[in-house]
Amino acid sequence: MVDTITVSIKDLHSYSMAALASIGMNKRDAQTIADKLTLTDSWGIFTHGNKLLGDYITRIQAGGTNPIGKPRIASEGPAWAIVDGDNAAGQIGCDFAMRKAIDLAKSAGIAYVGVRNTSHFGAAGVYPAMAAEANMIGIAMANDIPSVCAPGSKKAVIGTNPLAYSIPAAKHPPILLDIATSTVAAGKVYAAFQRGEKIPKDWIIDSDGNPTSDGSLYPLKAALAPMTGHKGYGMALLHENLAGVLTGASISWQVLNWIFDDQTKPTGHGAAFIVINPEAMMPLTKFLQRVDDLISEIHKAPTVNDIEHLLVPGEMEWKCRETAMIKGIKMPSDVVSKIRDLDNKIGLNPQWLN
Amino acid sequence: MVDTITVSIKDLHSYSMAALASIGMNKRDAQTIADKLTLTDSWGIFTHGNKLLGDYITRIQAGGTNPIGKPRIASEGPAWAIVDGDNAAGQIGCDFAMRKAIDLAKSAGIAYVGVRNTSHFGAAGVYPAMAAEANMIGIAMANDIPSVCAPGSKKAVIGTNPLAYSIPAAKHPPILLDIATSTVAAGKVYAAFQRGEKIPKDWIIDSDGNPTSDGSLYPLKAALAPMTGHKGYGMALLHENLAGVLTGASISWQVLNWIFDDQTKPTGHGAAFIVINPEAMMPLTKFLQRVDDLISEIHKAPTVNDIEHLLVPGEMEWKCRETAMIKGIKMPSDVVSKIRDLDNKIGLNPQWLN
Repeated sequence: MVDTITVSIKDLHSYSMAALASIGMNKRDAQTIADKLTLTDSWGIFTHGNKLLGDYITRIQAGGTNPIGKPRIASEGPAWAIVDGDNAAGQIGCDFAMRKAIDLAKSAGIAYVGVRNTSHFGAAGVYPAMAAEANMIGIAMANDIPSVCAPGSKKAVIGTNPLAYSIPAAKHPPILLDIATSTVAAGKVYAAFQRGEKIPKDWIIDSDGNPTSDGSLYPLKAALAPMTGHKGYGMALLHENLAGVLTGASISWQVLNWIFDDQTKPTGHGAAFIVINPEAMMPLTKFLQRVDDLISEIHKAPTVNDIEHLLVPGEMEWKCRETAMIKGIKMPSDVVSKIRDLDNKIGLNPQWLN
Repeated sequence: MVDTITVSIKDLHSYSMAALASIGMNKRDAQTIADKLTLTDSWGIFTHGNKLLGDYITRIQAGGTNPIGKPRIASEGPAWAIVDGDNAAGQIGCDFAMRKAIDLAKSAGIAYVGVRNTSHFGAAGVYPAMAAEANMIGIAMANDIPSVCAPGSKKAVIGTNPLAYSIPAAKHPPILLDIATSTVAAGKVYAAFQRGEKIPKDWIIDSDGNPTSDGSLYPLKAALAPMTGHKGYGMALLHENLAGVLTGASISWQVLNWIFDDQTKPTGHGAAFIVINPEAMMPLTKFLQRVDDLISEIHKAPTVNDIEHLLVPGEMEWKCRETAMIKGIKMPSDVVSKIRDLDNKIGLNPQWLN
């Protein structure tokens, strides 16, 4: 039994960077990945933060992820670009792509940037957060190897293909949503299993097409259930087209599972980013005030039980980060255990991990 | 008790046009609305087809919808435009906006067109279908008066704010999804109530925050439930921002219910369209083939029970339309009844309605 550990954002970020540098990644790329994983942990989204660091490093060491990959623009137009991620880590190709989308949207008002030859990109929400930081609306989508069934299917037919978006506001923090198009993200099934917990019956479907609460069956002998049946399945297909079909990335079963498949081969994931620049369309202060007005309206809505006020998406995560900046990040046991496993291999032995 | 009626697409379309012309609408606008309502009926989406014609006409006669409104470009850039719908029928402003988005995407690769001063626009899917017809990817979103609660709220805080998209393929018909971000669209609650049926308990929440199967409570004493809780609520907020906040349209409770509120006032709805032109990014035949490959992959997936093959979104609707083109549209009793009510007022008395 491993305990939880509280670590400062700074110490966790330093560790993340040092771990990546220890296997030959340059400082700038290591920082990009550490930024995103640590931001995710500070939001309290532990399934997609530094918990993944060890598995990312395993993949780099096996050769499937290129530690010195350099994303490049494969083709572009006035309001779009296709990026070749050069099989670098997902965060490297996708950070590059989101920056490009923000640049293009400055003049065009909206931009689409798709990425091929990328990989698992962590929490989808970190990319739209970059757009919101630049006072723009950001949307991120990705494809993945099928792990989710469709209404009527006996096995997985589509990935968890997430959607994330962020919208800047005036005095409020940005609205920020990050969802899988399955009922829950795969990471939640793994985390519950690793903590020895049963899972709710509407999360996965066994290989006979029946609901099950045995998380150990996933992913080899079970598939995730799509969000609200045909709705989540339909959205996942949109993301598959924008992130996979249109970018020239691998599609559907061509994509490799970044943990369970051959670690020496690139996964072939695709991703897609859309950025809208509100300032092209109305004075920025007016736009931000209108977003604030909408948030304030929602905050005033009558609530059930002891709920103080309704939350907008991301509100909980930004509050969590505010607390983490003062008190540190309290990492759950499954995350601590994964980082201990990693450190047993790379031997950085930071004080906070003991 | 009213029976179902089978009517040819041509006869239904002629009736729809004639009804709108009878109250002073010009032929071109009447045709635009008739096209969209009849296309929707031919897909088998009866909640959003000519069933609505009578209520649209009531609103026009009351003065809330402008029968001679002319949508115009309020502002535009290289890849975006904001359209002022001039309080014409939703179909008029939104058809104009989708055409503009298709035009802009031809050169820019992607375009955003937002609309303010529009109204209920029927089935969201008819607009992306226009983009797919032009071999482009189309996305439609809209806002509406709040009718859906959020996790923790006692009453409605957001509209059903739909999402629709369409993607063209090579030999297959376009992928086409049209969903409300609530568990079900309000039209399904009304239709079940009009047919005297109880509704499933996860469709609406009464004013104490409890699930109920009494459809008569909606919309005055109940709110719709959001799709998968925070996920549908979060998506509805994205659509509220792109269709309402960014366009200068009415937001949230400022929007009027197009049936239950003052019929003499414009509803103030907003809508948003995004079009992506795949041909800007890869040879069109290659893109269409890649979409076909994805559809074929899904068709091959093993299925449960007697399901012949898995469907992609829209497949059922395009098959339904194919049948309707040969055998006519078999309209359910609630639709027939609404059209009879309308015809009692306007007296066109078409043979097929008797």
